[in-house]
Amino acid sequence: MKGLFITFEGLDGSGKSTQLKNIARVLREEGFETVESREPGGTEFAEKIRSLVLDASLPITPTTQSLLYFAARSEHVDKLLRPSKEAGKIVLCDRFSDSTLVYQGLAEGKAVEELWDLRQINSYATENFVPDLTLVFDGRPEKLIERRMLRGVSDRYEDMGLDFQHKLRSGFLALAKLEPHRIKVINAEGTLEEVQREALAVIREVIAKETQDVG
Amino acid sequence: MKGLFITFEGLDGSGKSTQLKNIARVLREEGFETVESREPGGTEFAEKIRSLVLDASLPITPTTQSLLYFAARSEHVDKLLRPSKEAGKIVLCDRFSDSTLVYQGLAEGKAVEELWDLRQINSYATENFVPDLTLVFDGRPEKLIERRMLRGVSDRYEDMGLDFQHKLRSGFLALAKLEPHRIKVINAEGTLEEVQREALAVIREVIAKETQDVG
Repeated sequence: MKGLFITFEGLDGSGKSTQLKNIARVLREEGFETVESREPGGTEFAEKIRSLVLDASLPITPTTQSLLYFAARSEHVDKLLRPSKEAGKIVLCDRFSDSTLVYQGLAEGKAVEELWDLRQINSYATENFVPDLTLVFDGRPEKLIERRMLRGVSDRYEDMGLDFQHKLRSGFLALAKLEPHRIKVINAEGTLEEVQREALAVIREVIAKETQDVG
Repeated sequence: MKGLFITFEGLDGSGKSTQLKNIARVLREEGFETVESREPGGTEFAEKIRSLVLDASLPITPTTQSLLYFAARSEHVDKLLRPSKEAGKIVLCDRFSDSTLVYQGLAEGKAVEELWDLRQINSYATENFVPDLTLVFDGRPEKLIERRMLRGVSDRYEDMGLDFQHKLRSGFLALAKLEPHRIKVINAEGTLEEVQREALAVIREVIAKETQDVG
């Protein structure tokens, strides 16, 4: 196999991180080599940048934040994601470019047509490294927040309230509409098993297509 | 006065940093309020980014390096440079956008027409904050290296040899040719006093024009 790059996107609390771990395990059991990673971060240097950004005590501008995330992504693609895919592995990444477009663009009030700057810089940072498949784990924010509360997790974005969560959700759905071939929406409100089944079905389709293309 | 933003550019060893300090002192003695800064760095957070980049033990890609410099610049402009200029001060900065175009672009073998990416990201990072005047302290690299050796200074770029210094020089001169209205070339091979006189004459011209415009 030629290698695959699959990104997991969606709101915090959508279960995407848990799904990523579980799906990676299933794929390994079937004989695939997998690499699991996440953004921002993924390499030692990128994790340093991540710490710098997430330290909320430093009041940095949204522009600075975006540029730091792009710098971290550039390292991540160059040192881990691209070489792993080229080595024929299935690379699963928790958040990637679409999160940037949603969190730094759409949820900040920009329209899809105004994301030009962010797309440009993203192409520069990744040298046009685009996911073969993106899964958006989608659900009603009210439902997902409930789950998140039960887990007792908190970060910078989660403090921004329900309105913001709705904007994020609309953002991801808008991107999915724009690129239906690459981005698949998964219903994240079901049980762990239901969501995994739906996500795996989509992934297997892409793997089958990939194997067919090469064969 | 409306405030002025003046950048000092050129090779290491061109004397630009010393000139900046001396010229700032002269301007203060004449009653102007000045702010002295430098890139990369200039604010606490930007200095943190600077340290990250200059730590040569970490092998980061040129793209990551550029993006980190842009992130630092974004903070620098937002927190220090723009508010100082808007407060009516003369802001003097050691290196700025032109250094990025030269070090990350022209000296790396790109043509002036290929700097499009870097210019775009720079506009994004600075929200189009452009110097009112840029002084390029220019001299033959052989001559400047000699001076630098005498001072015993060394950094990442200086290890790259004479060929690279020539590329940098050509880069700065190419930009000056492209924007003769903003970028003025100062002969940096003269004595401290000669160079200061030439640079101050150009600065006074811009101040006079500025005062006239407002009056």
